[in-house]
Amino acid sequence: MTKGNDSLDSLFNPRSVAIAGASPGKPGQLFLDSLLASGYKGQIYAINSKGESISGLKAYRSLGEVPGHVDYVVCCIPAPAVPQLIRECAAKGTKAVSVFTAGFSESGTEEGRRLEDEVSRAARETGVRVVGPNCLGVYSPRVGFTYTSDFPMESGDVAFICQSGGNSVYTTRAATYRGIRFSKVVSYGNACDVGESDLLEYLAGDAETRTVAIYIEGVRDGQRFFQVLTELACRKPVVVLKGGHTGAGAKAAASHTGSLAGSDQVWDRLLQQAGAIRVYSLEELVDVLVTLSLLPVPQGRRVGIFGGGGGATVLGTDDWSRHGFVLPPLPEAIGEEIRRSVPTEAGLILNNPLDLSSFAYSDRFYELIRRLLIYEGFVDLSVIHIGFGQAAWFSTSVFDAEINSFKDAVTRIRSEAGKPLALVMQYLITGWDWQKSIEDLQQGCAAAGIPVYYSMTSAARAIDHVIRYHERRRARGFD
Amino acid sequence: MTKGNDSLDSLFNPRSVAIAGASPGKPGQLFLDSLLASGYKGQIYAINSKGESISGLKAYRSLGEVPGHVDYVVCCIPAPAVPQLIRECAAKGTKAVSVFTAGFSESGTEEGRRLEDEVSRAARETGVRVVGPNCLGVYSPRVGFTYTSDFPMESGDVAFICQSGGNSVYTTRAATYRGIRFSKVVSYGNACDVGESDLLEYLAGDAETRTVAIYIEGVRDGQRFFQVLTELACRKPVVVLKGGHTGAGAKAAASHTGSLAGSDQVWDRLLQQAGAIRVYSLEELVDVLVTLSLLPVPQGRRVGIFGGGGGATVLGTDDWSRHGFVLPPLPEAIGEEIRRSVPTEAGLILNNPLDLSSFAYSDRFYELIRRLLIYEGFVDLSVIHIGFGQAAWFSTSVFDAEINSFKDAVTRIRSEAGKPLALVMQYLITGWDWQKSIEDLQQGCAAAGIPVYYSMTSAARAIDHVIRYHERRRARGFD
Repeated sequence: MTKGNDSLDSLFNPRSVAIAGASPGKPGQLFLDSLLASGYKGQIYAINSKGESISGLKAYRSLGEVPGHVDYVVCCIPAPAVPQLIRECAAKGTKAVSVFTAGFSESGTEEGRRLEDEVSRAARETGVRVVGPNCLGVYSPRVGFTYTSDFPMESGDVAFICQSGGNSVYTTRAATYRGIRFSKVVSYGNACDVGESDLLEYLAGDAETRTVAIYIEGVRDGQRFFQVLTELACRKPVVVLKGGHTGAGAKAAASHTGSLAGSDQVWDRLLQQAGAIRVYSLEELVDVLVTLSLLPVPQGRRVGIFGGGGGATVLGTDDWSRHGFVLPPLPEAIGEEIRRSVPTEAGLILNNPLDLSSFAYSDRFYELIRRLLIYEGFVDLSVIHIGFGQAAWFSTSVFDAEINSFKDAVTRIRSEAGKPLALVMQYLITGWDWQKSIEDLQQGCAAAGIPVYYSMTSAARAIDHVIRYHERRRARGFD
Repeated sequence: MTKGNDSLDSLFNPRSVAIAGASPGKPGQLFLDSLLASGYKGQIYAINSKGESISGLKAYRSLGEVPGHVDYVVCCIPAPAVPQLIRECAAKGTKAVSVFTAGFSESGTEEGRRLEDEVSRAARETGVRVVGPNCLGVYSPRVGFTYTSDFPMESGDVAFICQSGGNSVYTTRAATYRGIRFSKVVSYGNACDVGESDLLEYLAGDAETRTVAIYIEGVRDGQRFFQVLTELACRKPVVVLKGGHTGAGAKAAASHTGSLAGSDQVWDRLLQQAGAIRVYSLEELVDVLVTLSLLPVPQGRRVGIFGGGGGATVLGTDDWSRHGFVLPPLPEAIGEEIRRSVPTEAGLILNNPLDLSSFAYSDRFYELIRRLLIYEGFVDLSVIHIGFGQAAWFSTSVFDAEINSFKDAVTRIRSEAGKPLALVMQYLITGWDWQKSIEDLQQGCAAAGIPVYYSMTSAARAIDHVIRYHERRRARGFD
């Protein structure tokens, strides 16, 4: 059978799901419980060999016994039984399967490779689309389909295809916390049928998806991947993290997903030619997604740095400079006014950068930043930073009073000014009581659509990535 | 008067302290309250111009009125009055003053420079040692002397001299959380009398101090600094963070502490020649301190990576490889045994790196790591990593059960094996309920003396720093 990419629709919109291998205490039950807890609206069926009821559901002994139609099967049965299950899916009219089961090519054994070939062949012969094996499968919030119950059921416009299950979980969680929402996430493991190129081709035409993130360890068909990636990257920003880019990492990747990792120099050239943004850690990946999703594109590299803490301001200025940003001096009238009105206190830096420890984060602070932001042409990007762990004498009550007004003020400034504004909130790790308050503030700002970063370096690096991305596009005549 | 460095003793061992400018709601009160709350054992006096009692203490109108002897004065009075206070200190027999007050050379005004010169002269003429102005002063836990009440009163062997008050607070807090304890911390601001070179000279001979950390924006006498630093670095590891190493950062530093930052190339050569370890962020500074203080020095670059999570393992392997570490294969007998006994599950990597998701962190996991660690000559360093945010289905109860045994097991392995063992615990930022449990675990491990890092990259970078440090020392014939 031939398969167009239309067949991938079945992965993302299942109206009914069966978990094969949903036995008590096994991974199958965890998939089942996640679906039950997430509020998935479709029909859910449990299958296990003994027909034992599980998590309050009746269980069937086989897919064939399930009374209704089944769009999608999550496969958690032993590897040798998987090829046969694919054929049962075809008989049942099931269009998509994700195979959690491992013990295929990634095991490095002859038997593993043979079994994976059989699964491949079954998929090819029947037209059933198989994700994996050795993967977590699909998260599609629009229909409430998920593999872990804490992913939000709100839909967004970022798609993430990820060759590692664990990395897909961590990244989705971390990005969600920063205000990102996803259209689709696919943990696709060994990629024996549905491969990275199929997914990217599909996402290029997916109206729901505006940005694509990729964690990849290796590709099956380099030429096709390059072609598909290039076409996709012409239309949408693509961010790529290549796992196994060192020799030892590549060996680990081979054991992890059976991938041939390929030379790092080749990858680097390939990603650059395709117009993708290359990152080197999951944290950097999330930082770039936050920037692409939440920050209006700065039209230049002039940055204004406003915040509290002299040492933090000096180091932060170094960080932004190192990433190619420049700090124009404050407009003279405003600078003069600030210097006149600020009480003399330890080590204030009163220009750009501007250290307003003495009255951060008062109404005057916000008013000042508001004026600076709307000041015609002064900067292309404003950064407000808070060095939580820097303040010597924060009491919880002072702190709570300050942060209570912070989110509202920043949200107001941002919507009024309409200019690129980034928040840097040091992620404090000192075991303080008010850690919870800081987290609530971070998440509150992120939920309000403000791009929040955890350090000046990570903010500068991510925003530099995105500015360079647009510069390259302009140079190619795309933007 | 001439002053030897013996006179710096008075900074660190005050038996009585007066706060000048301890007025209600002003910084002076915050210094006073921090001292009162910290359990400082010496005599504490409050001084303010109205003689208003404050924080339950009687206040005096001037230093001269204080009935008892005063070893140390914390100065929070307006800048123009500071030179006179230094002379009153001399009359009273007070040997040391730290000046919080700003408005001196860092203000960039003629008047500020003139006042700072006057303070300098008063110090020089009277022999009173002045820290600052524009600084937080001294933290000396052995005598319970501090400028913020949350610093621990337990003493350690790391000294930190820091030209920024806020950076001294953040770094001390963050390092404390990671299990570091300090001998002395000095926030020394504009350095008009006691300078970085005096402090380093003193610390070179300080029996309490084994390791020295420096945050510095600029030096007054480059030649002396280089000489003192070189002598110190021969005797003790020195870690240096240079603030203002870019052009814009240097300008900010000038406004912050009145520093002439100097060319970055010159700094780089100077620090390298002196044998110091150079870092670029406060986080990296703390990582290196953790390594120097808590990790036995690895005798080579062979690393064993053990943990849970396939994708985390692949990326972590890349991180260690990039920093020059190598991963020898598992001893054959142990590798064979693991592959025989581990259930086939999604994407396990069963060599070195070793991904034991399926039975991490069970007794068998610990037993295995114990055996690998004591296995003659297999690796020079072992890394156990936990990708908290990677696990798809952690429930709080499973998680709590796992982490309860974790700390004990790792502590046991470490004391039994006596080999370099590092823990990498991803600092999860996903707003999960069990974040608190993770923090408790991190802090518990750190308190038990285990070096804990927040990412593979930061661990690899810090340990690489320390290995290179010892290689350089060996090459110079020091070790």
